[in-house]
Amino acid sequence: MDKLKKIIDRIKPLNKDLIKKTQHWLNSLTKPRGSLGRMEEIARQIVVIKQGINLTLSRKVIFTLAADHGIVSEEVSAYPQEVTYQMVENFLRGGAAINVLARAIRARLIIADLGIVKPRPPHSNLINKRIGPGTKNMLRGPAMTREQAMESIRAGIDLVESELKKEGIDIMGTGEMGIGNTTASSAITALVTSSAVEQVTGRGTGINNLQLKRKIALIRKIIQLNQPDSRDPVDILSKVGGFEIGGLVGCILTGAAYSIPVVLDGFISTAAALISSQIAPQTKDYLIASHCSAEKGHRIALKYLGLKPLLNLNMRLGEGTGAALGINLADLSLRLLQEMATFDKAGVSTRRDL
Amino acid sequence: MDKLKKIIDRIKPLNKDLIKKTQHWLNSLTKPRGSLGRMEEIARQIVVIKQGINLTLSRKVIFTLAADHGIVSEEVSAYPQEVTYQMVENFLRGGAAINVLARAIRARLIIADLGIVKPRPPHSNLINKRIGPGTKNMLRGPAMTREQAMESIRAGIDLVESELKKEGIDIMGTGEMGIGNTTASSAITALVTSSAVEQVTGRGTGINNLQLKRKIALIRKIIQLNQPDSRDPVDILSKVGGFEIGGLVGCILTGAAYSIPVVLDGFISTAAALISSQIAPQTKDYLIASHCSAEKGHRIALKYLGLKPLLNLNMRLGEGTGAALGINLADLSLRLLQEMATFDKAGVSTRRDL
Repeated sequence: MDKLKKIIDRIKPLNKDLIKKTQHWLNSLTKPRGSLGRMEEIARQIVVIKQGINLTLSRKVIFTLAADHGIVSEEVSAYPQEVTYQMVENFLRGGAAINVLARAIRARLIIADLGIVKPRPPHSNLINKRIGPGTKNMLRGPAMTREQAMESIRAGIDLVESELKKEGIDIMGTGEMGIGNTTASSAITALVTSSAVEQVTGRGTGINNLQLKRKIALIRKIIQLNQPDSRDPVDILSKVGGFEIGGLVGCILTGAAYSIPVVLDGFISTAAALISSQIAPQTKDYLIASHCSAEKGHRIALKYLGLKPLLNLNMRLGEGTGAALGINLADLSLRLLQEMATFDKAGVSTRRDL
Repeated sequence: MDKLKKIIDRIKPLNKDLIKKTQHWLNSLTKPRGSLGRMEEIARQIVVIKQGINLTLSRKVIFTLAADHGIVSEEVSAYPQEVTYQMVENFLRGGAAINVLARAIRARLIIADLGIVKPRPPHSNLINKRIGPGTKNMLRGPAMTREQAMESIRAGIDLVESELKKEGIDIMGTGEMGIGNTTASSAITALVTSSAVEQVTGRGTGINNLQLKRKIALIRKIIQLNQPDSRDPVDILSKVGGFEIGGLVGCILTGAAYSIPVVLDGFISTAAALISSQIAPQTKDYLIASHCSAEKGHRIALKYLGLKPLLNLNMRLGEGTGAALGINLADLSLRLLQEMATFDKAGVSTRRDL
């Protein structure tokens, strides 16, 4: 508990004065006021989080956490459970979508095993943070113990702190891999946002109508059986969450604690953000929503957090792919703020009515 | 006419067989089918346009065309006319938003004067394609002669063909600068899409409610006075267009003619695309809509063209800034298609029901 408490205590509110000052600077640049839209908003947020304009986002890091889910035995996914393991292999060989995007945007990709069913032999690029061999089937009881939930959060804290010590982090993105984890994320989103299960449950990797109906019914049963206390984020995480989701909660909180902009990926990352923000509400100020996924509950989760996604690309892959695109946009937005000429310097006339 | 005719004749329909083959390839990559959403669509479009998978988008070019508008004497803009000239200066010095983004995405930025009121002394990075010292006030008669409209289109053709000969173009974006050009674009959009003027007229660089009302009334008068033939795109361009818009028409048609993906910027570029597609309907297949701007008519113009924007960033700057972001996404989408591992190669299980 101590480690988490330290992290929570470090999360500070943003400096309101700096928000104004940064907007003033943005208004002095050679463009109609506000005409760069959301790009101005992200640039401002980053400057305020990092408390200065002289900064670079060159040390980009994406944390992709993998774990398995006991609920998969109920056939909630279109893909078999071994895909989690196989995709981790794919990450390690550099063939997955997130590898391509991380290379393209020059981000370091941190891959961690939070609890795949079958442990993989050690690999220099795979960080072992295993909490257990996948969660338990939530239809029979809690996905994990409360202690495991705390352990998964601490694992996420360790991942970020360790990267901070090694090479540093200017901006970070969240990502995950875990067959079955949209089921957990829908349950979390329903509980935190007080939404009906059918409002926040989608097709995941691609189930059909009948399977979707079953998935919704299963999630209702899971909630009824486990009775998570919706005001206790760790209770929610332990009863209907996942090890990688807990890990992401730790990552997100630690990003906020160390004044790092945290770019969320899709639905699962946002479910982790819901829990993080329930643990420490100030966390929200440090979050950037990369995209709104095709997964139904994502929009509701983002709205609850007060986040507007930058991209609407109908993506639903996870891994951190949306976060990579969001980090890329964030980087460009900061360059605009840093490199554009001011009206004064460029000798450009301002508005006639100003 | 001959030069334009040659270009039109070169614009070929896309190869439907290749569309299927490319989708098949995308489905073989290690991700749930369709889970990269719009990124898959752009990648597929680019491969089909360029007729092959072994290609690179390293030669990125953005054409930013500048010209002035006679209608500015009616005070339709929040900024004075000299801003067009001043911003061209800013482009040449590298301090504008489009400079920052072009540098960041490694695009060549081609700046051309299609008819600023006051000609700028020669500069190595400014291409002189002046049709005249700004258009005429459309409230008193046509913005330009039919011959000038044709000349502006030919100027755009020359710009692209010249770049093709020099260093080549793998993907191109359109951009513009011209105080008053949202007024022309609203008139064009109203005519081509048969929309009411108030449906397609917005605040441009930032006019207030009263000024917006006046702008709408002015555009109605302009259309009434000039009576453009809405089935004759060159008539529309000459009566209510602009030199830079005509230049962009030439650029867009030439991109399509040489099988180059054309990434549209905002409202003004899309107005040019409306005219291009009326001249040669096949052009649409070569277009990628980068973003949906805050300018009201843009959504209607995109819908008419059957284009879905990639970004919704509430931008309204022009210059090619949205196009730069779109080119960047297009580049990433192609890398995904080219670099991701297939299910077979990665040894990842496919769906259980397939």
